[in-house]
Amino acid sequence: MDSHISPVDLQKAYRLINHGPTVLVSARHAGVDNVMAAAWACALDFAPPKLTVVLDKSSKTRELIEQSGAFVIQVPTVAQLQLTNAVGTLSLSAEPDKLKKSGVGLFSIEGHDLPFVAGCSAWLACKLIPEIHNQQTYDLFIGEVVGAWADTRVFSNGRWHFEGADPEWRSLHHVAGGHFYAIGEPLKAQD
Amino acid sequence: MDSHISPVDLQKAYRLINHGPTVLVSARHAGVDNVMAAAWACALDFAPPKLTVVLDKSSKTRELIEQSGAFVIQVPTVAQLQLTNAVGTLSLSAEPDKLKKSGVGLFSIEGHDLPFVAGCSAWLACKLIPEIHNQQTYDLFIGEVVGAWADTRVFSNGRWHFEGADPEWRSLHHVAGGHFYAIGEPLKAQD
Repeated sequence: MDSHISPVDLQKAYRLINHGPTVLVSARHAGVDNVMAAAWACALDFAPPKLTVVLDKSSKTRELIEQSGAFVIQVPTVAQLQLTNAVGTLSLSAEPDKLKKSGVGLFSIEGHDLPFVAGCSAWLACKLIPEIHNQQTYDLFIGEVVGAWADTRVFSNGRWHFEGADPEWRSLHHVAGGHFYAIGEPLKAQD
Repeated sequence: MDSHISPVDLQKAYRLINHGPTVLVSARHAGVDNVMAAAWACALDFAPPKLTVVLDKSSKTRELIEQSGAFVIQVPTVAQLQLTNAVGTLSLSAEPDKLKKSGVGLFSIEGHDLPFVAGCSAWLACKLIPEIHNQQTYDLFIGEVVGAWADTRVFSNGRWHFEGADPEWRSLHHVAGGHFYAIGEPLKAQD
């Protein structure tokens, strides 16, 4: 594991996605790994931390999650714009070498049999909370966050530091098609 | 209604929140209006458009939504940083003049008996889809979007134009406490 990757206190894990970034969803089952992009992911609770993610019935990653009961939500960076667009466009069913074509490198974190995407800024290992009605009716999946990590070059002491990091570390916020916005400048409300 | 406010095609309504902004949730019941801030709101479907929003059991706005079955999700701007923080901090139960104290102005849109917050960049009128298990267990509410509007100074032809508008129009993305990021610069992935 890259020496810049450090665990994040589970109580602060929600902060990794609180600002609404587009995420990458990855999963593993029976020797098959896949990664997809999802703009529709959202925090759901603080403690224990939970999140929601919408996964279309056509996606291979959804199938892997239904089989394994686990997945990773990770926050891609501006440097991964092409990778994010590629894993959001290509399908593993049609393109067996999707991950290679998309430039995805995977790494492991001890204690979690899950594929983590290298180069992201944050990772949340999740255990699926089965809610069949939500999954079937709304394509809505709920996960409990059981592990969280971030790259200390952009997230440390429970805070993002986009303003102090290389702009390549900024999060991506998808609009439609291949169009995204990067996250911008910090603002502090007065008490 | 402000002459800059224009209807948005329901098929493109998801784009108003696809980039993950913190939103304002407003509702009305029996002559009571309230507005709260929510970072945990997310698109759920394209057509008919649906969204999710997490509403704590202590919030008065949640009570109004449970009673009326309707709400508005609106996208506040950098110019509304203080307002957004105030409606996210003050409680109507403790502060009967919360909306006045927070600087909230409301306006009406014909055909919708709902309080719309003036000065936002986009509005989604929603009909609650009752899902009692989600509401009770996860504080998770699902709405069907039945009307959508945007301010044409920052959203037109189905697209945000943050980069061409005054920076005061940028969306807010909450991290924690009074800390936010504004949305940043556009990026286009190569095909």
